[in-house]
Amino acid sequence: MNSNMVAMGVSELTKIVKELLLAAEVPTDEAAIITDSMIEADLRGISSHGVMRLPIYLKRLKAGSVKSKSETETIVETNNILLLDGKHSMGQVLGVQAMKKAIEKAEKNDVGIVGVKNSHHFGIAAYFSSIALQHDMIGITISNTTPLMPAIGGAEAVVGNNPFSFAIPAMDQKPIIFDMACSVVAMGKIINAQNKGESIPENWGVNHKGLPTSSPEEILSGGFISAVGGPKGFGLALVVDILCGVLLGGAYGKDVKSIYKEISEPNACGHLFIAIKINSFMLVDFFKRTVDQYITQIKSSQKAEGVSEIYLPGELELFKKERLLKEGIMLPKKVYEELLQLFEEYRTTI
Amino acid sequence: MNSNMVAMGVSELTKIVKELLLAAEVPTDEAAIITDSMIEADLRGISSHGVMRLPIYLKRLKAGSVKSKSETETIVETNNILLLDGKHSMGQVLGVQAMKKAIEKAEKNDVGIVGVKNSHHFGIAAYFSSIALQHDMIGITISNTTPLMPAIGGAEAVVGNNPFSFAIPAMDQKPIIFDMACSVVAMGKIINAQNKGESIPENWGVNHKGLPTSSPEEILSGGFISAVGGPKGFGLALVVDILCGVLLGGAYGKDVKSIYKEISEPNACGHLFIAIKINSFMLVDFFKRTVDQYITQIKSSQKAEGVSEIYLPGELELFKKERLLKEGIMLPKKVYEELLQLFEEYRTTI
Repeated sequence: MNSNMVAMGVSELTKIVKELLLAAEVPTDEAAIITDSMIEADLRGISSHGVMRLPIYLKRLKAGSVKSKSETETIVETNNILLLDGKHSMGQVLGVQAMKKAIEKAEKNDVGIVGVKNSHHFGIAAYFSSIALQHDMIGITISNTTPLMPAIGGAEAVVGNNPFSFAIPAMDQKPIIFDMACSVVAMGKIINAQNKGESIPENWGVNHKGLPTSSPEEILSGGFISAVGGPKGFGLALVVDILCGVLLGGAYGKDVKSIYKEISEPNACGHLFIAIKINSFMLVDFFKRTVDQYITQIKSSQKAEGVSEIYLPGELELFKKERLLKEGIMLPKKVYEELLQLFEEYRTTI
Repeated sequence: MNSNMVAMGVSELTKIVKELLLAAEVPTDEAAIITDSMIEADLRGISSHGVMRLPIYLKRLKAGSVKSKSETETIVETNNILLLDGKHSMGQVLGVQAMKKAIEKAEKNDVGIVGVKNSHHFGIAAYFSSIALQHDMIGITISNTTPLMPAIGGAEAVVGNNPFSFAIPAMDQKPIIFDMACSVVAMGKIINAQNKGESIPENWGVNHKGLPTSSPEEILSGGFISAVGGPKGFGLALVVDILCGVLLGGAYGKDVKSIYKEISEPNACGHLFIAIKINSFMLVDFFKRTVDQYITQIKSSQKAEGVSEIYLPGELELFKKERLLKEGIMLPKKVYEELLQLFEEYRTTI
């Protein structure tokens, strides 16, 4: 057991997170959504989008750069499309509301596309895509983020590592839940390498001159993370920014602000949620059984030397969730202590 | 000038390609589309999908594994969705027809999604996405292909390097035309390295045991190309295969056949074409001007040391097209001679 990590039961952690959000004047139902989304990220092993984000959310709620009680305004609505102004409310709350609307539209008209501008960091994209699964739909979620990556040949961040997520239902197999960011790795991996004094592969990032580097320090002091596959990841990230920023009349590129560096400014990111009704194409059961067959074809394919099992996108995360629901969520000591301290401060003020 | 390359005027090349297709009993209007699509690929510098594909198309037309005169059957049609059985007709013809239908549906109902199953290799995905530009729409094209890449941890091809393309209109700037395959590189690059006796980066592919290799020979003799970004590219390719194969009730995974290895068998790939009407979200001019602003923001961003200009997705391809329209298309001598020989054979038979 790593001594820098502390295990915490899911119900205890849920209680602390929710109470802290309530104390920040987030309404009960909204606090429940935000809490569930963060805990779900931790359970799936995406701790970078889990409860470690709570302290910054609380700071921003206090600063007023994100609304505690969510508001939305409808900008456009048609049979298939809904465009919402999120009025700088919490992204998790807007996201659940928007994906549910996309599902409603798809239920009636085969496909629903809901855009949200003026939103705020929403955690893991897969959380929202996954809602579509219960409705026998394919869920797609994309979002822009504050710029983190330069263009190909650039030495200045111009586009976020904008996530992409697809959720596809299966019958007896686990659903396929795919969630990627458009950078080679998350900034957290570079910080980890620095902490361990390790060098990194040259394709992970560039220094302040835009040149490849194997030094985590060079990336962290004025450098940038790189797009996955160079022009491929950059192009995908750019398309996402245009769909989630430009097309919704919201912020794009540099106008999407960092939630950490600009605490008193709205984040202003945008998201697009798409639900596709499988039943409009074919019988749902036939689709799901065929997905099962494809999964089986892949899992039973020839394995590389030394590999004992092949996993599909999202499968390891769902296994991890099953395990952590029993064992508790492992938090870095620093995050654990920060949460406990925030909780103490809150308890002494009531 | 590389002596292995031969320049050929666009009109002369167009004439030869079209005549050969007509000789293979492809109807005039369909031959025009197929020819234009291949020449367009060559003009944009995507020669792997240009006229070098004609000999295999002709072989397959002769073998009857692809129809010379296209046929389609409507499987499902709603306001937003059309699902066509392409009956193993040429992919280029089906693709243009399908994207036009997607545009019609989007014109009336904001978004059009047209799927085509039982299709055949369609060339460059961007060709179809680009049709949406003239209608002030965003065009999206995806397709599955015969399996080329193993799963993560696999040593057997289970999924194609399935292409993704987006076309986004701009006002005064060139449109953004993004087109990627989900592999790190195309097989052609590995063949090139082998021809030059060069080693390749270890992330380009794996050997027959599924282990990374820097030897082109090991990949070409029983090995495989790798997905870009590992699980990211694999996940994207898998999602595309499910959308273009499973969701359309068509072939997926191993049931999509190689156009080279299985000449007498239908290719049976599937495509999905999506058109999004910008005017349903906002004024088209405002959208296009904002895209221009974003392009300017990126092109004027700080450049990496030694870089003189930053290019957007598709920009270099459009520059190349302008140049080659004047200078002619450069063909490898082998392709040039093969085309001339086919043309001679055809002329002596009439």
